[in-house]
Amino acid sequence: MAKKNSEKKDATKKQKKGPKARKVRIGVVDTMFARYDMGQAACDELAICPGYNKTFKVITQTVPGFKDLAVAALNLIEEDGCSIVIALGMPGSAPIDKQCAHEAAQGIMQAQLFTGTPILEVFVHEDEASDPKVLASVFENRSRKHARNAYWMLFEPEQLRRRAGQGIRQGFDDAGPLQLK
Amino acid sequence: MAKKNSEKKDATKKQKKGPKARKVRIGVVDTMFARYDMGQAACDELAICPGYNKTFKVITQTVPGFKDLAVAALNLIEEDGCSIVIALGMPGSAPIDKQCAHEAAQGIMQAQLFTGTPILEVFVHEDEASDPKVLASVFENRSRKHARNAYWMLFEPEQLRRRAGQGIRQGFDDAGPLQLK
Amino acid sequence: MAKKNSEKKDATKKQKKGPKARKVRIGVVDTMFARYDMGQAACDELAICPGYNKTFKVITQTVPGFKDLAVAALNLIEEDGCSIVIALGMPGSAPIDKQCAHEAAQGIMQAQLFTGTPILEVFVHEDEASDPKVLASVFENRSRKHARNAYWMLFEPEQLRRRAGQGIRQGFDDAGPLQLK
Amino acid sequence: MAKKNSEKKDATKKQKKGPKARKVRIGVVDTMFARYDMGQAACDELAICPGYNKTFKVITQTVPGFKDLAVAALNLIEEDGCSIVIALGMPGSAPIDKQCAHEAAQGIMQAQLFTGTPILEVFVHEDEASDPKVLASVFENRSRKHARNAYWMLFEPEQLRRRAGQGIRQGFDDAGPLQLK
Amino acid sequence: MAKKNSEKKDATKKQKKGPKARKVRIGVVDTMFARYDMGQAACDELAICPGYNKTFKVITQTVPGFKDLAVAALNLIEEDGCSIVIALGMPGSAPIDKQCAHEAAQGIMQAQLFTGTPILEVFVHEDEASDPKVLASVFENRSRKHARNAYWMLFEPEQLRRRAGQGIRQGFDDAGPLQLK
Repeated sequence: MAKKNSEKKDATKKQKKGPKARKVRIGVVDTMFARYDMGQAACDELAICPGYNKTFKVITQTVPGFKDLAVAALNLIEEDGCSIVIALGMPGSAPIDKQCAHEAAQGIMQAQLFTGTPILEVFVHEDEASDPKVLASVFENRSRKHARNAYWMLFEPEQLRRRAGQGIRQGFDDAGPLQLK
Repeated sequence: MAKKNSEKKDATKKQKKGPKARKVRIGVVDTMFARYDMGQAACDELAICPGYNKTFKVITQTVPGFKDLAVAALNLIEEDGCSIVIALGMPGSAPIDKQCAHEAAQGIMQAQLFTGTPILEVFVHEDEASDPKVLASVFENRSRKHARNAYWMLFEPEQLRRRAGQGIRQGFDDAGPLQLK
Repeated sequence: MAKKNSEKKDATKKQKKGPKARKVRIGVVDTMFARYDMGQAACDELAICPGYNKTFKVITQTVPGFKDLAVAALNLIEEDGCSIVIALGMPGSAPIDKQCAHEAAQGIMQAQLFTGTPILEVFVHEDEASDPKVLASVFENRSRKHARNAYWMLFEPEQLRRRAGQGIRQGFDDAGPLQLK
Repeated sequence: MAKKNSEKKDATKKQKKGPKARKVRIGVVDTMFARYDMGQAACDELAICPGYNKTFKVITQTVPGFKDLAVAALNLIEEDGCSIVIALGMPGSAPIDKQCAHEAAQGIMQAQLFTGTPILEVFVHEDEASDPKVLASVFENRSRKHARNAYWMLFEPEQLRRRAGQGIRQGFDDAGPLQLK
Repeated sequence: MAKKNSEKKDATKKQKKGPKARKVRIGVVDTMFARYDMGQAACDELAICPGYNKTFKVITQTVPGFKDLAVAALNLIEEDGCSIVIALGMPGSAPIDKQCAHEAAQGIMQAQLFTGTPILEVFVHEDEASDPKVLASVFENRSRKHARNAYWMLFEPEQLRRRAGQGIRQGFDDAGPLQLK
């Protein structure tokens, strides 16, 4: 069982201990364009994570649309000192919206590489469900699940490790691991 | 209500106060290629924002086509000291135009990440409306709305916050938030 | 008329005046792959611009294909001191050629952002016209028009300003501004 | 036989010899999203490579989804000192999944260029096989083969050289070289 | 004839003359994935170029697949001091292969811009010909032609200049210049 014996990366190394330890900062950036308050859902989840406003605090920002998320996330990291950012947006259903979503996602990818810091891209496509109630549950669930993932990445990486290869999903039910037999 | 209690990012931190405070600069770059004077519409909106030519001033440039916007915006930031740029262009309706628009948008995205400064991409696609009067209203409305967004991002970020997740649009009517019940 | 009153960017600031002023350099890079000598057309236009070989001179290079243009343009800027580059190429008509053109265009975009210097991408697609005489006129006209644009960007930016939003084209007739009434 | 006489790059130059020689580090990053424990397969293969835990050791990390692999791989290199990283993920079968896979792959490509360090992208697409047993064998085989490739790249580059142009595959049978006669 | 009179870029400036002059290095990187030994073809051509192993020498490396070419080429430049690299690969014929080829090509483009050094992308798509003998001739011819181009770019740039706009091809017959009359 090589994986179990391999050295596991300590994702919490950026935290400083001691009396002067600054609270870890988690950034949440959302948009006016989305048709659901995704940022609120993410903040609600973070508020029930251990250490909220004690070991970590949340910094929020709202931008016009999802193409504005990348540079905002980059600045939440570089200027505001966030250790991780949750970037939430809703691409529309037209072909041009898909292309814009692609550009926005590429920007979020690059912002991560420029800063060496994870930015969780949380996109709900307007056409993922036709029933607004179902779509709302996707917005709420996916935003919360990724907020929890961000918390785990900083403070409880073993939660991610034990779910490796388990077909975990956000927004819909988990797919689960493949049944091989 | 975690989001309300979270720390809000102060987008105006780049402004310096005092007798020697330099005016904040907003860049506006447009093209010869577009079939509507989008730069003029953006400038007209900025001219009616509070503090025009007092707390902020506008710097304009015109380039040949929308693929030339990205480096021009980058230079408006790096050489001319703009704190935000509004980049306005009109992609045509042929497939190759869509690909060029994609390249132009990727360039604008990267210019933001290279400079850590927002550049609002304001594209009106020539095929968004067949009626030239309707299309003209899209040009005028979207250019003005994004000019206002740029102003808000620098001076009144709470305007963006209170519209988070509200389905705000530029060019056409707002989509509004999802009606869940 | 806010735009008229806005501060206009002086694109000629890189020129140094005085007895030791070095000539401004304009780069022209073309390919063996193209089926028309686009570089010659660009050089012919520059040769009739005011100040040719007095206030500015032209540096040329030929590379194998259009995917080799980006790094050549970057080096014309970084190593040879060009203030602008005209990059001329001809993508073929097969789907793979379109993809290659996309990659070449992305490279030219990035080279601009890495250097903070405009590179005018002048591509003529082999399938823009079926009549070789028409296609030749597109090659000649577009190459010349963009060479003139490069000259204007460096020395007469007001030529671009006064054409903002006028539907200016290179290779074919101008589309003109939208007739709104 | 020019190739035989050419100078061959020594891929092991990053290793330092002597009593204080630090073990070479190989990074393995996988996801919760995948439906197979690809990281375990990679680690199992590395555990049977010569020098395991003597000349090299393995550092593992699990992230939520395949779009989170790039920045994690970058940090395994820059912060944890890995000389190569194996990045394992499973894109889904919907069109949006293909686009996301493209963005993830672009990020992994960029992370390599930013760090000057190879990151082997090991993606198994959920629709590569309809039979779950076949798909599982693809997951296991491709993850192991690329883990072996990573080992070869660091310690036995001649293994790669002698297979140049031989149509080697991971996950399915080798295609073999073209039969020209 | 402006082009003739323009200043021509001296591509050989990186060579140092004199008794201590180091040989110029040309990198050749190929893959195990390809079904033809493209690297050998490139090396065979370089071996018959003037100055082989006198004014220049060749450094070779083999990587698993074509997505691994970009970082290998970058390191051949940055670590091994190559003045140009020939990167040879064979994308397969499935749609996902086309996407991977796009990502690989983007990486090669970026590696050029990061290093300011040309990397000639030599891709033969598995579906360019159905007859394996024809395909083999494409592999051999394109690999050799681009190896010759690399040599010309370093040592005989006038060979490229005199072929500007002549519809030169690698792998198949030259298209030739357009016949305008």
